[in-house]
Amino acid sequence: MSEQAGRAPRRPTIADVARLAKTSRGTVSFVINDRPGVAPATRERVRKAMDELGWRPNQLARSLSTQRAYGIGFILARDPRALSSDPFFGPFIAGMEQKLDEAGQFLVLRFVSGKESEIQAYRDLAEQGRVDGFVLSDLRTDDPRIDLISSLGTHAVTLNVADTTTTIPAVSRSDEPGVLAAVDHLADLGHRHIAYVGGPAHYLHAIRRRATWQAALASRNLPEGRSVQSDFTAAGGSAATEQLLDLPARERPTAIVYANDLMAASGMSVAISRGIRVPQELSVVGYDDFELSAYLTPSLTTVRTDPMAWGVAAIDQLLRVIDGKPARDVALPHPVLVPRQSTGPAPRTR
Amino acid sequence: MSEQAGRAPRRPTIADVARLAKTSRGTVSFVINDRPGVAPATRERVRKAMDELGWRPNQLARSLSTQRAYGIGFILARDPRALSSDPFFGPFIAGMEQKLDEAGQFLVLRFVSGKESEIQAYRDLAEQGRVDGFVLSDLRTDDPRIDLISSLGTHAVTLNVADTTTTIPAVSRSDEPGVLAAVDHLADLGHRHIAYVGGPAHYLHAIRRRATWQAALASRNLPEGRSVQSDFTAAGGSAATEQLLDLPARERPTAIVYANDLMAASGMSVAISRGIRVPQELSVVGYDDFELSAYLTPSLTTVRTDPMAWGVAAIDQLLRVIDGKPARDVALPHPVLVPRQSTGPAPRTR
Repeated sequence: MSEQAGRAPRRPTIADVARLAKTSRGTVSFVINDRPGVAPATRERVRKAMDELGWRPNQLARSLSTQRAYGIGFILARDPRALSSDPFFGPFIAGMEQKLDEAGQFLVLRFVSGKESEIQAYRDLAEQGRVDGFVLSDLRTDDPRIDLISSLGTHAVTLNVADTTTTIPAVSRSDEPGVLAAVDHLADLGHRHIAYVGGPAHYLHAIRRRATWQAALASRNLPEGRSVQSDFTAAGGSAATEQLLDLPARERPTAIVYANDLMAASGMSVAISRGIRVPQELSVVGYDDFELSAYLTPSLTTVRTDPMAWGVAAIDQLLRVIDGKPARDVALPHPVLVPRQSTGPAPRTR
Repeated sequence: MSEQAGRAPRRPTIADVARLAKTSRGTVSFVINDRPGVAPATRERVRKAMDELGWRPNQLARSLSTQRAYGIGFILARDPRALSSDPFFGPFIAGMEQKLDEAGQFLVLRFVSGKESEIQAYRDLAEQGRVDGFVLSDLRTDDPRIDLISSLGTHAVTLNVADTTTTIPAVSRSDEPGVLAAVDHLADLGHRHIAYVGGPAHYLHAIRRRATWQAALASRNLPEGRSVQSDFTAAGGSAATEQLLDLPARERPTAIVYANDLMAASGMSVAISRGIRVPQELSVVGYDDFELSAYLTPSLTTVRTDPMAWGVAAIDQLLRVIDGKPARDVALPHPVLVPRQSTGPAPRTR
């Protein structure tokens, strides 16, 4: 125990015990709380370290931590291929893990299909004491998970704001500035017929992006554009683009904004295979900055959203909520337009 | 309790208790074993269901299950962007989850960077009793995790075979037939100068794929080809392709096999931007069948590996190992060549 002149000796902490026992704080907490499952040899090492350091439990901390699981649940009601095709999840999960790692905690990842198994998965993780809270992504209209969280007596943060009143804090990165920047970029290049290919309409973020595209066109005094609802997949982007390019010449867009890069890259491919030059005859903008996008020919103009920072911020707020500290809605910096080769001046003749 | 004529009544099982208590088998097991963390109301519901059904613990089963965590660990020492750029992980994780879900268990997913944190992550999950075993992917030469598993007294399966002797079962999908099929396809199209762009040399699967390409060329009496070591990323595929296309005309390949689709798509882009027509002047083959590959122009010839089935098989064997049942190495069906537009006859003039 170190002493500094004039101060009381610093009391040993769980972190000190962990360091001496060559294990993690989470493991030390489990030993303190007599959780079964900890290997006997490990338990012994931890107890020895406690004796050596003269560690005593802090009663208040103990009562708070008795039911702690030191885990967070992330339950995705998505096709598992979304993990590969949506460049959001990889870095987002990594950001969550970075913060969880600092706090000595773990992530439980679960894919579910269908509403019933989704609700059951939240119940199971909460009832089994495996997690202390959840990160809710892909908020839907009138999302049933909002009430579920309170009824389970657990904790959560949402990614972006729900459309129902709740005390669950939201950690948000607004899409609006990104879509606005995309439309402004195209309007500045002289485009007047700007179409939109969006994600499934039950997702709040899909609804908001499309609404922003509409409002952005109006704010630049542009005519209403065509919009096609799609599904964030390569196949969907291809089909939506065929639809738009099949329009009579007078109605065909000279630019298309896509709600993600996968659909944009796929759509760009459709245009090129029809002999339509990108960007000379058609400009294309994506969203998300998928890893391949900078390396396509032409390289894909997109909007960069830094999902890793979002993951860090989400866990940061969630751990505050779980620790009973004041937590608030957090707004992350705006996404940024990344102009590349797939956008250019509007063609002169129509 | 149902009775059938002439048979003793069927004894209620944990599954029956779970159904009546409207919860999962994992939760019932936790209550049986007095694990802290289970919500009191849930505990009550489960006890009530046990009484109603006249459920009695099976002593042997109880002693086996006392230390069960009902969780599996999957620790990845990869850049988190790999989750997006490598189409293996999404479906693989989904396959694991499908099997875990049937068994009422959970997946703990962890990204680590650097050997130290990797070893510590395995220790933590094992020592805290959070998982009963691990799936080891990305086996490396002389992989330290093989001995670590025994020293931690936990369980595992490996994806593909380690290069050290071990009793850990391997669940394998051999890459050799896929690479062989790619080279045969190109040789059948008349190509004689077939290059290879591979993954990082510390991965066993990267070493094996490259060795197979070499052997395949020899088996078709083709000259030795150029090979460039890369890193499975789009940037790496781009740089490797620039290298190959910068070669003097006499030495330039007429076909390139890439160790994944991301590098192949990126490389194809480099060729096209240099005015080299694909496939007329250069044929390109990838690996993995990433979702966008069928929608590129030209669409990308690749090798399909069905990672989801691999995930199901890995968990299936791992649960057998954990339950103390005989487990063995498993070999999955061969990967399949998917010929698309990016491969064609070798150009006549050289």
